[in-house]
Amino acid sequence: MTQHSLSQLLGTQWPLIQAPMAGVQGSAMAVAVSNAGALGSLPCAMLTLDALQAELQAITTQTDKPYNVNFFCHTSPVPDAAREATWRKALAPYHAQHGIDPATIPAGAGRSPFTHEAADLLEAFKPPVVSFHFGLPAAELLARVKAWGAVVLSSATTVAEARWLQAHGADAVIAQGLEAGGHRAIFLPEHLTGNWAFDLTTQLSTFALLPQIVNAVTCPVIAAGGIADAAGVRAAMALGAAGVQVGTAYLLCNEATTSAVHRAALQSDAALHTALTTLFTGRPARGIVNRVMRELGPLSASAPAFPTATAAIAPLRAAAEKFGLGDFSPLWSGQNTAGCQVVSAAVVTESLISALSNE
Amino acid sequence: MTQHSLSQLLGTQWPLIQAPMAGVQGSAMAVAVSNAGALGSLPCAMLTLDALQAELQAITTQTDKPYNVNFFCHTSPVPDAAREATWRKALAPYHAQHGIDPATIPAGAGRSPFTHEAADLLEAFKPPVVSFHFGLPAAELLARVKAWGAVVLSSATTVAEARWLQAHGADAVIAQGLEAGGHRAIFLPEHLTGNWAFDLTTQLSTFALLPQIVNAVTCPVIAAGGIADAAGVRAAMALGAAGVQVGTAYLLCNEATTSAVHRAALQSDAALHTALTTLFTGRPARGIVNRVMRELGPLSASAPAFPTATAAIAPLRAAAEKFGLGDFSPLWSGQNTAGCQVVSAAVVTESLISALSNE
Repeated sequence: MTQHSLSQLLGTQWPLIQAPMAGVQGSAMAVAVSNAGALGSLPCAMLTLDALQAELQAITTQTDKPYNVNFFCHTSPVPDAAREATWRKALAPYHAQHGIDPATIPAGAGRSPFTHEAADLLEAFKPPVVSFHFGLPAAELLARVKAWGAVVLSSATTVAEARWLQAHGADAVIAQGLEAGGHRAIFLPEHLTGNWAFDLTTQLSTFALLPQIVNAVTCPVIAAGGIADAAGVRAAMALGAAGVQVGTAYLLCNEATTSAVHRAALQSDAALHTALTTLFTGRPARGIVNRVMRELGPLSASAPAFPTATAAIAPLRAAAEKFGLGDFSPLWSGQNTAGCQVVSAAVVTESLISALSNE
Repeated sequence: MTQHSLSQLLGTQWPLIQAPMAGVQGSAMAVAVSNAGALGSLPCAMLTLDALQAELQAITTQTDKPYNVNFFCHTSPVPDAAREATWRKALAPYHAQHGIDPATIPAGAGRSPFTHEAADLLEAFKPPVVSFHFGLPAAELLARVKAWGAVVLSSATTVAEARWLQAHGADAVIAQGLEAGGHRAIFLPEHLTGNWAFDLTTQLSTFALLPQIVNAVTCPVIAAGGIADAAGVRAAMALGAAGVQVGTAYLLCNEATTSAVHRAALQSDAALHTALTTLFTGRPARGIVNRVMRELGPLSASAPAFPTATAAIAPLRAAAEKFGLGDFSPLWSGQNTAGCQVVSAAVVTESLISALSNE
């Protein structure tokens, strides 16, 4: 699979995807990237249906280029009162310190999986590319997406996951290297032990993962994780990628909604320390090490199942951010922040595609 | 720094270094690789002076090509009886199960740092390349090595370490990506906290680390970690490397002294799971996950300081290996075993340099 044919599949000028990043960007970034000739992405996991409708409207009125909508497709967990209690106990000193009454904290999920209601809404827009995280949705839901001709992408963190995605209908696979920011897409084996220190031993860097996936599947493979600039794009292509997906390099862009504490962390020496952590959502995701990660340990076993861990830590985040502190904020970041620039997303896009221009 | 100039510096035909791997290879592999046009390496950290003399004799009688000798340069730890007792307690159930009397286990280091005695011996051979792990030796020791004209290499796991190595006399820096097998070279800050879950948050993959080091130093940068084949070599060069160092791909070679249990693990699905562990030596090193790593946790805080952790686990390793079990063996491996082949080291070398031939 060549660079040319991935562009054909996506309908873009260049085989570059702006990684969907829930919480730090919306339609503005997707529009800027798509208009620059790459594939802009809208992260939908944290949007209400009304917000999703508004964002799709915003994209389709501002670009006629292809764009991507991204959904999570996890199974919502069975409520576990005992585990939630353990978690609340771990956070109790922080709640007390910040004057938060734990009784006032609502339970509830912070991220929704893809649903028929979302598909109903999408059908009116027929987004040309739909990407998923944590596997693929149920067959009948996936069939609805394919029915309007959408190209379907999903992320693999192991060779086994890449084979599974290809066999279950993905048109291209994103090889998500260990250096990537945000949530690991890990979804196999179906019943992960939840002992992340063990489950994560399968997680490989881009250098190790990408060529093994390229050898294992016949569909195009998109490299993600650690790619910050044109040299990174060239290296990914040398390892057999048909294209690349880049997230972290866009985090400081004008179109990003990255918070002030998050921007400050990305531009400080704090960004030299990243780790996979379950503290913010219940699933391992890479972010800059902060106070709560240091004090509880980033992979604390007491964090409730994804995505319910979010509820009890969210008010702490809000309270600390009022004082300019990211002590409880998910400061998502990949390992390589060298590409972060305070510029428009078009500039980052142009810099990345310069690696491809003369081929 | 181009590929050509690193070859000039090393005196080799190709800018490829076979990674020194203590415990799994000796002079035979170094000779095979050097004779194939790359730089063969002799790991010296576990050799007595007599053995070192014999190995150098073996190399210099079998090749007239450049070769590398590799030494550790850690500071030997102050004995810590309390910590040793905690560690012995953690291992007590295993000792009991294997009929090992803990009183019979000698204390003592498993790996020696570079010394004046070793330098005395080296002076007779004047090895053309000397590489170090965990920083550089004291200035006067380093001066002795430089006095016979040796090219000095050392590994960096962060940008700060790369700058330090260049400033303190390294002629080229090896950027050791997180995917590399064996010991992480991490040596800064000088006083690591010993809380590895935190100290290791600075450790980046090759994709993230290599280009940042290339931008930070003026000396040649050699890429290590995750490189398994010609495509990996090309990708490393695209990221700005002047050459590459490859270890894991040589582990099954005929010239390797890799144990039977280690070879079996490398060729099984067990190799899909690797982790950094302190259990075998006291410093984090990447190996295939085995029983003791699963049961004690790979980064157990009770393991004594490097290299003294080796003493109490060594008899368990020997006992289990008699039954064909690698339950207590350091099964060193990088994340990418795709390049492992049961062939001569010359064949692996030729396969890797094929990426460079037409430049």
